[in-house]
Amino acid sequence: MTINKLIRECIQKKQLSANKLLQRLVQEDSTRGNEYKAQAIIIEKCRELGLQLDIWDIEEKQVKKHPFYRCDRGNFDENPNVVGVLKGSGGGKSLILNGHIDVVPEGDRKDWKVDPYSGKVENGRLYGRGATDMKGGTVALLLAIEVMKELEIPLKGDVLFQSVIEEESGGTGTLAALLRGYTADGAIIPEPTNLKVFPKQQGSMWFRITVKGKAAHGGTRYEGVSSIDKAITIVNRLHELEQIRNARITDALFESIPIPVPINVGKIQSGKWPSSVPDIAVIEGRIGVAPNEALKDVEQEMEQWLVETAKTDSWFKENPVEIEWFGGRWQPGDLTIDHPLMTTLSDCYQEVFGKVPVVEASPWGTDGGILSKAGNIPVLIFGPGTTEVAHDANEYIELQKIYEAAEVIALMIYNWCNQEKE
Amino acid sequence: MTINKLIRECIQKKQLSANKLLQRLVQEDSTRGNEYKAQAIIIEKCRELGLQLDIWDIEEKQVKKHPFYRCDRGNFDENPNVVGVLKGSGGGKSLILNGHIDVVPEGDRKDWKVDPYSGKVENGRLYGRGATDMKGGTVALLLAIEVMKELEIPLKGDVLFQSVIEEESGGTGTLAALLRGYTADGAIIPEPTNLKVFPKQQGSMWFRITVKGKAAHGGTRYEGVSSIDKAITIVNRLHELEQIRNARITDALFESIPIPVPINVGKIQSGKWPSSVPDIAVIEGRIGVAPNEALKDVEQEMEQWLVETAKTDSWFKENPVEIEWFGGRWQPGDLTIDHPLMTTLSDCYQEVFGKVPVVEASPWGTDGGILSKAGNIPVLIFGPGTTEVAHDANEYIELQKIYEAAEVIALMIYNWCNQEKE
Repeated sequence: MTINKLIRECIQKKQLSANKLLQRLVQEDSTRGNEYKAQAIIIEKCRELGLQLDIWDIEEKQVKKHPFYRCDRGNFDENPNVVGVLKGSGGGKSLILNGHIDVVPEGDRKDWKVDPYSGKVENGRLYGRGATDMKGGTVALLLAIEVMKELEIPLKGDVLFQSVIEEESGGTGTLAALLRGYTADGAIIPEPTNLKVFPKQQGSMWFRITVKGKAAHGGTRYEGVSSIDKAITIVNRLHELEQIRNARITDALFESIPIPVPINVGKIQSGKWPSSVPDIAVIEGRIGVAPNEALKDVEQEMEQWLVETAKTDSWFKENPVEIEWFGGRWQPGDLTIDHPLMTTLSDCYQEVFGKVPVVEASPWGTDGGILSKAGNIPVLIFGPGTTEVAHDANEYIELQKIYEAAEVIALMIYNWCNQEKE
Repeated sequence: MTINKLIRECIQKKQLSANKLLQRLVQEDSTRGNEYKAQAIIIEKCRELGLQLDIWDIEEKQVKKHPFYRCDRGNFDENPNVVGVLKGSGGGKSLILNGHIDVVPEGDRKDWKVDPYSGKVENGRLYGRGATDMKGGTVALLLAIEVMKELEIPLKGDVLFQSVIEEESGGTGTLAALLRGYTADGAIIPEPTNLKVFPKQQGSMWFRITVKGKAAHGGTRYEGVSSIDKAITIVNRLHELEQIRNARITDALFESIPIPVPINVGKIQSGKWPSSVPDIAVIEGRIGVAPNEALKDVEQEMEQWLVETAKTDSWFKENPVEIEWFGGRWQPGDLTIDHPLMTTLSDCYQEVFGKVPVVEASPWGTDGGILSKAGNIPVLIFGPGTTEVAHDANEYIELQKIYEAAEVIALMIYNWCNQEKE
């Protein structure tokens, strides 16, 4: 029996326990600051698989000096990072399998037709916050490793499973794992690519723009300057900048993506009283960073663009906006498509599906940017689930896709880790 | 000595105690729900002046059935309305002198160069929340009454001094006084007109508009619909409606006012996460109502206008905005300029200043709308202070204007209350 048939059969036997594992993970709310319960389940599973465990609380002083560190959390105690290593016999290429355990908040519960932390299964879909982003991907990784153990498949290179915190807020978990010494010859992150392969990833940064107005009584609003109206000018400027930035992108991998590097205005808040002219508005958002861009350059371009708003609106000459680059920032990723990691994964995909994978650039930043830009590790993003439902109400994952991803990843572990280390 | 000279001299002697009274009133934060401490000072002063006092807590059941009642407060306990009556000898016209004790919140304290509740005096100006809107006006009323008492000026008609709550939130205090039976042949409200006379007043209503979007991950924002972008469409529609509504206004009294009946968008809130497409936006604001308009018609016009947004933006066909008419609503006022109340006040003004007053339409709603539309009482707005600083940081009033207003109002009491009742 060929290795891929063995893997497929083994995964079929493990489906129910994989579903159960995912359900338990989704049932633990692992939003920022609450990751420990879901990590406890991960730790239990790693112990069961006999992985060499490393569980540690990130200390700010370990990470804060790194130029990629950007985090407003401060305290990471009791919400550990977890690494579980499956040691190879030596001489082969090592592989990091990285998933993040943190999830974004569930949003307005009224929009959910099921409890966001129920893990309810219906028609082959498992529902709940984090099902697709990315507890489903993490379960695929663990399933692939389980198959290696179960089938006692010999491996030369090490497999380094990582369950990290803080991905949704800028990647401090993955950065901490890197700074703790975990590196490898390649890495796979099973973010929800819908089983497409993303050798390039959009990076992104969060921004906060404070826009000034001038307060007045609403009945004489012409005596004031509305910070809401001025914020609208800025939002429109950001839409223009988005068009300009995206017109520059010619990479074929981005062809099918409507807006390769979006600028998303995610929050606005202005005013306290219906009949007063508001005098301050705060806008928060994220700007996408193309694979070939440096975050610093993107910061400068946006700052300059907003400074130039004063050319058409003199209010901003006297009252320039304040820009803050706060919270999350994700480095872009940029692997060439002829890299051995890419060709090996493509081959594995073909063996499983009998066709070449769809290769695209990812429309969002991942922790892959940190591994590649700060750790010089080749990274591919490949996983089950779709971004359409990530961060949204009624997030779900098709369970079948988890098994399929696990099959490709198991084969990838076998093929990659048994390649001679260069 | 003429009556107006006597009045002027008396006021000059009372300036320091008037300043002190205003300072004490400003030092008590009388934002909504906290009016009682400032009212206690008013009560003390009314006692000193020997007025017939009526102090009562408004009960919701007393006012809620009135069609003009629109209030979300529910409980008014321990923040009483106050009426103090100076009885005339009979046969003359009565006069209501109405001021509100409530103030709007101080806003961002960082914007204040003095403590908003300091009542600090500098260069003839007294600073603090409520100084101009309208504790300064209330002090002018009390000063005028004090002069009547001090000079023992005989009056035929009654003077009804009213210190009411809730003006800033829609006028429940004045409505309650009216429903308690307080009526008169005329009324003066010393809102900050900068000593202009406003026989017509803009009314206004608060609105809350809820705008839907569709959530998505910010990196694939094209898969969602931003409630911020959709809210911008609505804000722009409101600006258009404002233009249309104001183009209709031809009343000469509005000539010098840039926007006679403004639509003010005072608040916006949308989104929770910088890298998510927000799916709900809430806008709050106030729409101005022209003197000749009924509130109901204005509601309908705005609702219809927003329904028609769907003609140019199909999103709103499937996702119509929700409009709520909440909180405050102020009836407009509309006194003809040849009304005896108007001509009498003009004469008094001329005696004091040696020139005719500037007559305009007020750019904001007052409790005058309730007195005139619900109580059929002729109302004029005339007071010290300017709207430019009302509701703003560093609100102040020029103390000299309080004395001048008091002089005109004292003379008005004398002239009006001694006119034969028709």
